[in-house]
Amino acid sequence: MTNKRRNFLKKSALIGALPLVGFDQQVINTEKIPFSKINKGDTILFQGDSITDSFREKEKELPNSPDSLGKGYAFLAASKMLNTLPKKDLTIYNRGISGNKVHQLLDRWDKDALDLKPDWISILIGVNDYWHVLRHGFKGTFETYENDYRKLLKRTKEALPDVKLIICQPFAIPRTTAVDESWVKPFGKYQAVAHKLAIEFNAFWVPFQEVFDRAILDVPASYWIPDGVHPSISGSQLMADEWIKVIESA
Amino acid sequence: MTNKRRNFLKKSALIGALPLVGFDQQVINTEKIPFSKINKGDTILFQGDSITDSFREKEKELPNSPDSLGKGYAFLAASKMLNTLPKKDLTIYNRGISGNKVHQLLDRWDKDALDLKPDWISILIGVNDYWHVLRHGFKGTFETYENDYRKLLKRTKEALPDVKLIICQPFAIPRTTAVDESWVKPFGKYQAVAHKLAIEFNAFWVPFQEVFDRAILDVPASYWIPDGVHPSISGSQLMADEWIKVIESA
Repeated sequence: MTNKRRNFLKKSALIGALPLVGFDQQVINTEKIPFSKINKGDTILFQGDSITDSFREKEKELPNSPDSLGKGYAFLAASKMLNTLPKKDLTIYNRGISGNKVHQLLDRWDKDALDLKPDWISILIGVNDYWHVLRHGFKGTFETYENDYRKLLKRTKEALPDVKLIICQPFAIPRTTAVDESWVKPFGKYQAVAHKLAIEFNAFWVPFQEVFDRAILDVPASYWIPDGVHPSISGSQLMADEWIKVIESA
Repeated sequence: MTNKRRNFLKKSALIGALPLVGFDQQVINTEKIPFSKINKGDTILFQGDSITDSFREKEKELPNSPDSLGKGYAFLAASKMLNTLPKKDLTIYNRGISGNKVHQLLDRWDKDALDLKPDWISILIGVNDYWHVLRHGFKGTFETYENDYRKLLKRTKEALPDVKLIICQPFAIPRTTAVDESWVKPFGKYQAVAHKLAIEFNAFWVPFQEVFDRAILDVPASYWIPDGVHPSISGSQLMADEWIKVIESA
């Protein structure tokens, strides 16, 4: 038995259950601590548009409540975190609102973000900033999006200097019921803005567009995201898994 | 490089993405096929009481829909299966109804189970068969439960001889707002009936009571299941993970 193997077994015994494995099998590296950057007592806030909202109830807006967390990736990610970290006393909010663009987040940011004193803010915003130009005569451009988004992030860092920011890549999948190829180039500018701001504000970056792009190589987009904007149940799980992967690797 | 390692790499390349690991890390055994007993085109039905129902919408009762699947373990397990098996064209229903006892399942079994022609039926029933004796003057005993449950399973096997049955252990956690120690012995008889029938009908057995009993060793029951009957979001994830573990090891 090598020293490494001995140490591994010793640590496993301390950690708790070691999976039973035969000689033929290799085992999961149990030394990794899940969500090691999430501290005891942390408050985690999901913010965004309909994809985050996902039909959450908006009267009580309770933390850690299935109803108030909606039916999408925020609920699924919260469920996994609350299950995996029962001793961390986490408080997890969803305050996404359907139809929101970044300027609407700005309008309600005190009440729906800063006042909650979150330790983590995850933001997914941008698809309506482009989409509503096409269908609701909205006059914003990707420069409006950049200016407003930077304002939002600056205000956040001023009010909560230690907050951990998670910027999620806005996404749209062509050849679906609401999105066609004409989106790719102009919407790409909004995606580039989000990425630039993630770097500028030292935020975690969740590459949702890439996740969907990979998924539809094998299985039609209609399975993951029928209209190209709003994920199905399996698409939401895809997002939650990716979001968790980013936070876990933090 | 040993032959085993070579074979492993070859298979991994066929399966798809090989996780990137350093020399220090061991890797997950990727040769296991997830949910290998679930076939292409399978229909999976979740049946039961409020724990399964979990506020699902009951007008459309669509398969694979977040609304129609509720907010509990059925939704979480479905989400994981639909995400993991995108090529299997699964159809997943939730037809749990809050307050149901086993005789109420019997009453609606044609419409809400057999007519759906499921390949898998997962049943979680029993807590109300005991609870409603205490609080609603219900006259059933564990023998009524056994007779009705056996009738239900017989009818199922006669109508759908190839159906795969999953019997979930009904559970109740004492020292909570609705359940006390006085439940343990009498309710244990209902749990024993469910276990006996699982063996009799060669069903998969999902030991939910044990899962909660283990979870509360470390973290108070109020975190997982505040009233002792209805799980929190983290308790639902606990159930979904256990349910999936049983099906995966099938």
